[in-house]
Amino acid sequence: MNPYRASIVTIGDEILIGQIIDSNSAWLADKLFHLGFKITEIRSISDQPAQIEQTLAELTIKNDLILVTGGLGPTNDDRTKEALNDFFGGKMIMNENVLDDIKSFIAKRRGYLQLSDNNRAQAMVSDVSTVLRNAIGTAPGQLFNHNNCITISMPGVPFEMKHLFENQIIKELEKRFEIRPNKYRTLHVIGYPESELANKLSDWESNIPDSIELAYLPSPGVIRLRLSSLSNNNKDINNQIDKLRSIIGDSIIAEGKEKVEHTIGKLLSDKGYSIAVAESCTGGLLSQRIVSVAGASNYFQGSITAYSNEAKHRLLNVKNETLKQHGAVSKETAMEMAKNVASQFNTDIGISTTGIAGPTGGTTEKPVGTVWIGIYINGEVDAIHFMFTHNRTVIMERSATLAMYEMIKRIKKMG
Amino acid sequence: MNPYRASIVTIGDEILIGQIIDSNSAWLADKLFHLGFKITEIRSISDQPAQIEQTLAELTIKNDLILVTGGLGPTNDDRTKEALNDFFGGKMIMNENVLDDIKSFIAKRRGYLQLSDNNRAQAMVSDVSTVLRNAIGTAPGQLFNHNNCITISMPGVPFEMKHLFENQIIKELEKRFEIRPNKYRTLHVIGYPESELANKLSDWESNIPDSIELAYLPSPGVIRLRLSSLSNNNKDINNQIDKLRSIIGDSIIAEGKEKVEHTIGKLLSDKGYSIAVAESCTGGLLSQRIVSVAGASNYFQGSITAYSNEAKHRLLNVKNETLKQHGAVSKETAMEMAKNVASQFNTDIGISTTGIAGPTGGTTEKPVGTVWIGIYINGEVDAIHFMFTHNRTVIMERSATLAMYEMIKRIKKMG
Repeated sequence: MNPYRASIVTIGDEILIGQIIDSNSAWLADKLFHLGFKITEIRSISDQPAQIEQTLAELTIKNDLILVTGGLGPTNDDRTKEALNDFFGGKMIMNENVLDDIKSFIAKRRGYLQLSDNNRAQAMVSDVSTVLRNAIGTAPGQLFNHNNCITISMPGVPFEMKHLFENQIIKELEKRFEIRPNKYRTLHVIGYPESELANKLSDWESNIPDSIELAYLPSPGVIRLRLSSLSNNNKDINNQIDKLRSIIGDSIIAEGKEKVEHTIGKLLSDKGYSIAVAESCTGGLLSQRIVSVAGASNYFQGSITAYSNEAKHRLLNVKNETLKQHGAVSKETAMEMAKNVASQFNTDIGISTTGIAGPTGGTTEKPVGTVWIGIYINGEVDAIHFMFTHNRTVIMERSATLAMYEMIKRIKKMG
Repeated sequence: MNPYRASIVTIGDEILIGQIIDSNSAWLADKLFHLGFKITEIRSISDQPAQIEQTLAELTIKNDLILVTGGLGPTNDDRTKEALNDFFGGKMIMNENVLDDIKSFIAKRRGYLQLSDNNRAQAMVSDVSTVLRNAIGTAPGQLFNHNNCITISMPGVPFEMKHLFENQIIKELEKRFEIRPNKYRTLHVIGYPESELANKLSDWESNIPDSIELAYLPSPGVIRLRLSSLSNNNKDINNQIDKLRSIIGDSIIAEGKEKVEHTIGKLLSDKGYSIAVAESCTGGLLSQRIVSVAGASNYFQGSITAYSNEAKHRLLNVKNETLKQHGAVSKETAMEMAKNVASQFNTDIGISTTGIAGPTGGTTEKPVGTVWIGIYINGEVDAIHFMFTHNRTVIMERSATLAMYEMIKRIKKMG
């Protein structure tokens, strides 16, 4: 059986003019991929009715499923609902259940009920749709079944869209499709630029069977390799991964589709380790990424970001002598930061970053991109030197990502 | 004159399966909008040659400009260049200049020269294209002129793409189009949900002239209102903004397309104020957002993230009595955190966050979403209570955003 084909359409000028990044599509694509759909394309279009209808005409004939987000807000620039209704040949009617939802949502939020015309208009739906009521916002979803293609429209506000998808739309998909979740594994590889890794793996790659699909997924500091089985066979994937480990085993640091901060969360919880963070060049990013995982308060104790030498000395107890002799961006400072922040917060682990993120502040000896990462674990401390290229944001991201991977490496080595 | 029409195409399975968020499109859309182009649509497609050619066929007849990113990497899953060449009817040839670029790039990066077949293949270009050499990576850009539409392909790695766009593509666009940058202003409004703001502005909105386009751009904690003039007239925009100020003047906190952290950067630099941050529920996010602005080291001194009560007491000197009597999530704790972090780092300003980001940790009295923001400026300190809904990420983002806006409000009030 061929996989079902799906496309995602996001509607709204704010994406087309670059005011917001379309994160909804990536979230939905990930969900659909896991449910076994093949995503053929993603389009962002304006809320002009003619373009909405043209897009639906092009995509509904090529796909089994279309997910539409956006264009359902309470403001006047949203014309999606009318365009959908016109395309699917219905008429707009007031839905009393949705109106009740909106009333209770607004009353709860404001403490009193005052319905605007905009709010009331949100209760209008197409009479040829199945209405998907929104429990945490005012815009309902709608499902249309037309020419062997299911089209589902959702609000564009990310948390409303996600809530609707997880609580209602998955059920609707399970009713209408034979869901066969994709089989795949994802490995996190550090230490290689993409072209070198491809080079190193070229022999292996040319021998993997056609039923296995390989994808390189690079991001700052790490390349994830994803192997998926088109024949839904776990054994084939596992065989290939065994071969892969014999080639680049040392560089495979983690597994799983999740980000490294989730891997850390699991590892620290399993080991019962606590952690604290000392930052300079990453300015809070490392701490924030660790804390972004729900439940981080079980292992994360806190962090200190110290930009100036004085702050490094006073708040992180880095010796003035160290700063004077080796500088703030040095192995010695990184090690003292890691060790001392662990002692400040009384944790098993301390990690630190100190470097030059730019755009200014570089010297010939220590150019922009020079970063030291210090890692203290249960009495042992060391620091690793990195030389990153490119801009401030990328340098910060790579530093935070690699600090986390280097920590994982060391914890695993300790057994 | 009607604006030029442009579309953006991103190529690569990693977007279609939701492994990465397409941030390139938003960046390019923003650039094109400022140059006066009207972006008609954005598409993400696979690297299947048939789909690439079909997409170009559909879009080149509707647009004056197509920007293509991605699908130029050194790994085997990239087939974009061949598909472009086939569509535009050329043949692939080795470009010696590009090969030299690749050689020197690799030699510089590795310290020695070892060219893989993959690297060599990157120097192949279409003979019907103008080659755009890449100074900071191995994949060159190409420009095609076909049927009154310019198509430009760029690497997908964000910093390479941006570098190529800013250093070469803008010049190519200026050669080929009469560039007329868009006139617009963007106001940052806090304190209103989108529907309430739309309601409050409905009379004003129905009276703005057709030559002014209004867009609501909501993000966690702030709605940006953008007024653009289709007739390129600044005076029309300014008139409307004067009217807007008379309706919601108090809620307009900042202006400019940039994020609030850039506004803060300018404000603090102008005033010569220094700042330090004390965080609990935002876990480093507030600090990281302030530091994300280049030059932040001129005003940002550092931050302390303290999760436990003990850390709040020991590192931020919050009195045990305060923690015991009022709790960690309280006005009193927020004020002490803000005041004390300013004294720890010897700064003019201290801001703090303490709250319950969830998903667990809420109580009846202090449910998930309860946040206190403390602000200390030059001897004066207060704290503001917020009750946010929704998930951990949104609560953290809103807290960080509103902490920055509330600080701006207070600095402006001080004159």
